[in-house]
Amino acid sequence: MKCQYELKTTHTFVVFKALAVDIDGTLTDKKRVLNCRAVEALRKLKIKVVLATGNISCFARAVAKMIGVSDIVIAENGGVVRFGYDEDDVVLGDREKCLRALEVLRRHFKVELLDFEYRKAEVCLRKNFPIEEARKILPEDVRIVDTGFAYHIIDANVSKGKALKFIADRLGLDVKDFVAIGDSENDVEMLEVAGFGVAVANADEKLKDVADLVTSKPNGDGVVEALEFLGLI
Amino acid sequence: MKCQYELKTTHTFVVFKALAVDIDGTLTDKKRVLNCRAVEALRKLKIKVVLATGNISCFARAVAKMIGVSDIVIAENGGVVRFGYDEDDVVLGDREKCLRALEVLRRHFKVELLDFEYRKAEVCLRKNFPIEEARKILPEDVRIVDTGFAYHIIDANVSKGKALKFIADRLGLDVKDFVAIGDSENDVEMLEVAGFGVAVANADEKLKDVADLVTSKPNGDGVVEALEFLGLI
Repeated sequence: MKCQYELKTTHTFVVFKALAVDIDGTLTDKKRVLNCRAVEALRKLKIKVVLATGNISCFARAVAKMIGVSDIVIAENGGVVRFGYDEDDVVLGDREKCLRALEVLRRHFKVELLDFEYRKAEVCLRKNFPIEEARKILPEDVRIVDTGFAYHIIDANVSKGKALKFIADRLGLDVKDFVAIGDSENDVEMLEVAGFGVAVANADEKLKDVADLVTSKPNGDGVVEALEFLGLI
Repeated sequence: MKCQYELKTTHTFVVFKALAVDIDGTLTDKKRVLNCRAVEALRKLKIKVVLATGNISCFARAVAKMIGVSDIVIAENGGVVRFGYDEDDVVLGDREKCLRALEVLRRHFKVELLDFEYRKAEVCLRKNFPIEEARKILPEDVRIVDTGFAYHIIDANVSKGKALKFIADRLGLDVKDFVAIGDSENDVEMLEVAGFGVAVANADEKLKDVADLVTSKPNGDGVVEALEFLGLI
C-alpha cells in the first residue's frame, strides 16, 4: 500500500497479536457515523479486536456485536470492561469519587448529565462549561477529560491504558502485543502502554505527541491506513 | 432494478414518508453482524428511519447512531420508545406483568435472564426451554415471543406495531406512511399496521404470511432489495 504517513519512532519487526481501537472520532466521523470501510477492515483481521470508548458498556458491546469483532470492550474511559456480550461489567473505577467531584462542579457551573442512569464508574457531562476552569477546582482523586463528544469526570486511577493492561493480563497477553488506535486525549494512556500507538489525522495534538504513527487520513480511513501500514490486512 | 420477489398484494402508487426496520436478523445476519450494504442504503434514504428491535434501548440508540439514521427507536419489542439519543426512554409496557409471569415460568423451567438490569418493559430469556409449553402456562396479560435470538415475555398490550403507531402520532404522520421491514414474529404487528410490509427471505413463515413483499434475498441484502423495489434508493 502506498500512503503518506508520519512515523514518529522506528520499530524492529514485531508481530502484533491484538488491536485496541477507540470508537467515536476514530471508527466514526464527527457525527458518530460508523465508517464502513473501517468495519470491513476490522472484520478481515486475524487478531483479537478490543473496542475502547468513553461511552457506556451497553453502547460498546452493541457496536462490537454490529461490527462482528470480539465482545471484549473497554467502556467509560477504562472505568468498565466487559469480556463477553452476555457477561457482567467489571467495574474498575470508583464512581463515588466522581459524584463528589460533580457536587464541587455544581457549585460553580450549571452542568448537564449524560447517560447518568447507565454509567457505573464515571460521570459524563455536556460540553457547556469551561473545562480549564473545572480542572482548577476538581479534587485530585479525579480528572476531567474531553473526548470531543462530552466531558468525563474519571477516577484518577482509571484510564483506557490501565484497562487494556487488565484485559491483556486476563487474556494471557503482554499489553505490548497490542496495537492501539485513537483520536483524543482519553486515548493517550492506551497508546502509551500499547506496543504500537496510532493517532488518526483528526486526533488531538496531545495524542499525536505520544503516537508512533500519525495517519494521513482521518477517522475510519485512518484506521484502514494504519492496519495496511502494519500489514495486518 | 431486476430482482425476483413475491408480491403478496397489489398496491396503487403510494409515496412512503418513513421506514421502520428491525435490526437483528434483518439489518444483521444470524451472528448479528451488521450488513454494510444495508447501512449504506439506509444512509441514502431521504425519508425518516426508525429502528425497531427486541433489544434494549441503549443498544438500539447505539446502532441508530452508528448507522447515522434518525435517533428515533423502538426497543424491547415496543415496550420502550426513544425520540432522541439524549432523550429519556418512554416506557409503554408494564414490566410488573412480565415479572409476575417470570415467577410462573420459574416454577416449571430453569430460566436464564438476559440484560435484566437494562430492561424496563419486559423480561428477556435464553432460549433453553420449550416455548410452546411456556405459552400454555403463562397468564393472559403477557405473551412470549421468539425473536430468533432470545425469548421475550412482553406485556400483552405492547407490540412494535403499537409503538410505531405511537411514534407516527408524535411525528404527525399516519402509520400507513411507513414501510416496515422485519424477519421474525415480533415484527408481525409492525408489518400489519404499516402502509407496506416487507419480510426478508429468512423471515418466519408467520411474518411472510402478513407481508406485502417477501424479498428473494435474506437479511440486509433483502432490505436493500426492498428499498430498490419501492424506489426509495
